[in-house]
Amino acid sequence: MKAFVTGGAGFIGSNLCERLLAEGWEVVAYDNLSLGRLEFVRDFPRDHFRFVEADLLDLGRLEAEMAGADIVFHMAANSDIAQGRRQTDVDLKHGTIATYNTLEAMRRTDVAKLVFASSSAVYGEPTLMPTPEDYGPLLPISFYGASKLASEGLVSAFVHNFGLQAWVFRFGNVVGRNGTHGALVDFIRKLKRDPKRLEILGDGKQAKPYLYVSEIIDGMLYGYKHAAESLNVFNLACPGATTVDFIAARIVAAMGLQNVCFEYSGGARGWPGDVPQVRLDTSRLAALGYRTRLDSDQAAAKAADVLVAQYGRDE
Amino acid sequence: MKAFVTGGAGFIGSNLCERLLAEGWEVVAYDNLSLGRLEFVRDFPRDHFRFVEADLLDLGRLEAEMAGADIVFHMAANSDIAQGRRQTDVDLKHGTIATYNTLEAMRRTDVAKLVFASSSAVYGEPTLMPTPEDYGPLLPISFYGASKLASEGLVSAFVHNFGLQAWVFRFGNVVGRNGTHGALVDFIRKLKRDPKRLEILGDGKQAKPYLYVSEIIDGMLYGYKHAAESLNVFNLACPGATTVDFIAARIVAAMGLQNVCFEYSGGARGWPGDVPQVRLDTSRLAALGYRTRLDSDQAAAKAADVLVAQYGRDE
Repeated sequence: MKAFVTGGAGFIGSNLCERLLAEGWEVVAYDNLSLGRLEFVRDFPRDHFRFVEADLLDLGRLEAEMAGADIVFHMAANSDIAQGRRQTDVDLKHGTIATYNTLEAMRRTDVAKLVFASSSAVYGEPTLMPTPEDYGPLLPISFYGASKLASEGLVSAFVHNFGLQAWVFRFGNVVGRNGTHGALVDFIRKLKRDPKRLEILGDGKQAKPYLYVSEIIDGMLYGYKHAAESLNVFNLACPGATTVDFIAARIVAAMGLQNVCFEYSGGARGWPGDVPQVRLDTSRLAALGYRTRLDSDQAAAKAADVLVAQYGRDE
Repeated sequence: MKAFVTGGAGFIGSNLCERLLAEGWEVVAYDNLSLGRLEFVRDFPRDHFRFVEADLLDLGRLEAEMAGADIVFHMAANSDIAQGRRQTDVDLKHGTIATYNTLEAMRRTDVAKLVFASSSAVYGEPTLMPTPEDYGPLLPISFYGASKLASEGLVSAFVHNFGLQAWVFRFGNVVGRNGTHGALVDFIRKLKRDPKRLEILGDGKQAKPYLYVSEIIDGMLYGYKHAAESLNVFNLACPGATTVDFIAARIVAAMGLQNVCFEYSGGARGWPGDVPQVRLDTSRLAALGYRTRLDSDQAAAKAADVLVAQYGRDE
C-alpha cells in the first residue's frame, strides 16, 4: 500500500509516516515546511519513503506527486489556532483551499480513499457535552474550526459526487513528540526564556481531552480498517479532560523547576476563538472496539516528559 | 439606513433591492452580472440606488464600495447547483471565498451587521424531516451545499472574533420574478424549444418546500428585526413541499400547451448532488411570529404564472 501524507513533516504527519513505514507501507510525505520540520523525517529509510517539499496550494505539483497513491492521509493544516484571528485568511488558504486541492487532486488521479484530520473545533461551544458526532448546529468560533467545517463539507461533496471513500476524525487535543504548537510547547518555550514566571492564557481552568499522538494514529488506522461506509465521521479522543493548570504543573516538574510564579491573563478562555471546555462523546469509535490506553491526564503527563526531553534543553 | 446587497442584480438580490428602496433605504447593489442581469435593476430610482458591476473576488474594490454601509445583505452565490460537479471550484470561489471577502471587507470597514442567504443544502440528506436548525451532522452532498456550510462557519468565526452580528437564513427553494435557475425556469426554456415534449430530471417525485421570493424577503426582514442574538440561524421556508410533477403541469398550463409528453430521466434525484426530499422545520421563526401567506404549492403556482409571463414569450 502506498500512502500520500499531507503535512507529512508536521507533528501528527511525521509520527504517522513513521508508523506506516514500520507497518511496511510505502509513504510519500508532502509538506511545505511552514510548520513541519525536515528533522522530523530526515532519518526515515529512503527505500520506502519519499519527501516532497511543496505547497498544497500548488495543485499541479500536488496532482503530479500524488499520482499512484492508494490512499491520502490529509493531515496538513495551520495548527496555530490563535493565528487565524491575526491573519483571517490563513485558515482559508492553508485549511479550506488546501483541502479542496487535495480532494481535486484525488479526483484527477483516481485516488479513492481519504483519511482526514478534522477537529472538535467544528462544534464551537456546544450546549451538549460530551458532544456526539451528530451534534448540531455547527457554529465554530475560530477560523481554524471554520476551515475544518468547510473541509468536512468538501469531503462530503466529493464523496457523494465522485465515489470517494473517506474517514473523518474530529480530534481532541493531540500531544506528544514533534509537537509544534499548543499549551505544552508554549509553556516550555516561555520557561526557557524565564524560569521564574509562567504566563498562562485564561484562568487555567480550561479543560479539554488530550490524546497522545501514537494513540491518535492507532485510532485513525483502527477506524479506517473497521468502518466501511462511504463517509465515516468519528470523534477521536479519550473520555474526560485535563486542565491547563495540570499541564503547567507537569511541565514545570518535568523541567525540574521550582517556585515558578503562574501569571494568569484571566478570563474563561485563553484567547478569542479558544473553546474553554471540551468533552467529546467517543462511544461511536468505542462501539467498533477502539479504546485509548492512556486517559487524558496520563497522555498530557507523558507528553510533558517527552516534549521537555525534546525541546526543554537549549536547541 | 444604507444597505449593501451582494448579488444585488440577481434573482433574490434584485427583489430585495426593490423592497428596501420601497421602504426608504439607501441601497448599493454589487454584482458581477455572471448570473444577475442589468435589466433587473435598471429602472430603480437613482437618487437612492447605486449599482456597482464588480466581483466579490476583488477584495479591494469590495472594501471601497462597501465603506459607509450600515448592513450587508450577502445574497451572491452560484445558484446553479448542478454546475458544481462539472466545475468543482466554482462554489469554492464564488461561494466560500466570496463570503470570506464579504466578511473581511465588513471587518475592515466596520460594517457590523450581516444578513446571509444560506440554504437547506447544508443538511445534505438528513434522516430527520422536517429538519430543524440544530440538526447534525451537516454532510452536504453538493458543492453548493458545501460552500454554504463553509460560509456559515466563516460567519460564525467573524461574529465571535470581531463582534459582528449576523442573521443566517437557510432557504428552501425560492421562486418568483427574475428567477434565473431551477426547475420552473428550466421547464419554460425547454418548452420554448420544443412544446411537444418535456425532459424531467429524476422521476418527478422529488418534493421540496417552495417559497415565493417576496415572502423570503418578508421573512429575512422579519427575522432581522425580531431576533437579537449575535448569531441567529433560521430555516426560512413554508411547511410542506411541492413535487416536480406539480411544477411541470403548472408550467405547461401557464404556457397554454396541451399534449406535452413528459420524459423522465429516471432515478429518485434529478442529478448527483440533488437532494430529492426536503422538509424544513420552520417553527423557530414561527415562534417569533413569522408565517408565510402562501403554502408551497401556491407559491410554485404563482411563480409559474409570473415566470411564464416574464420568460415564456420570445425574448
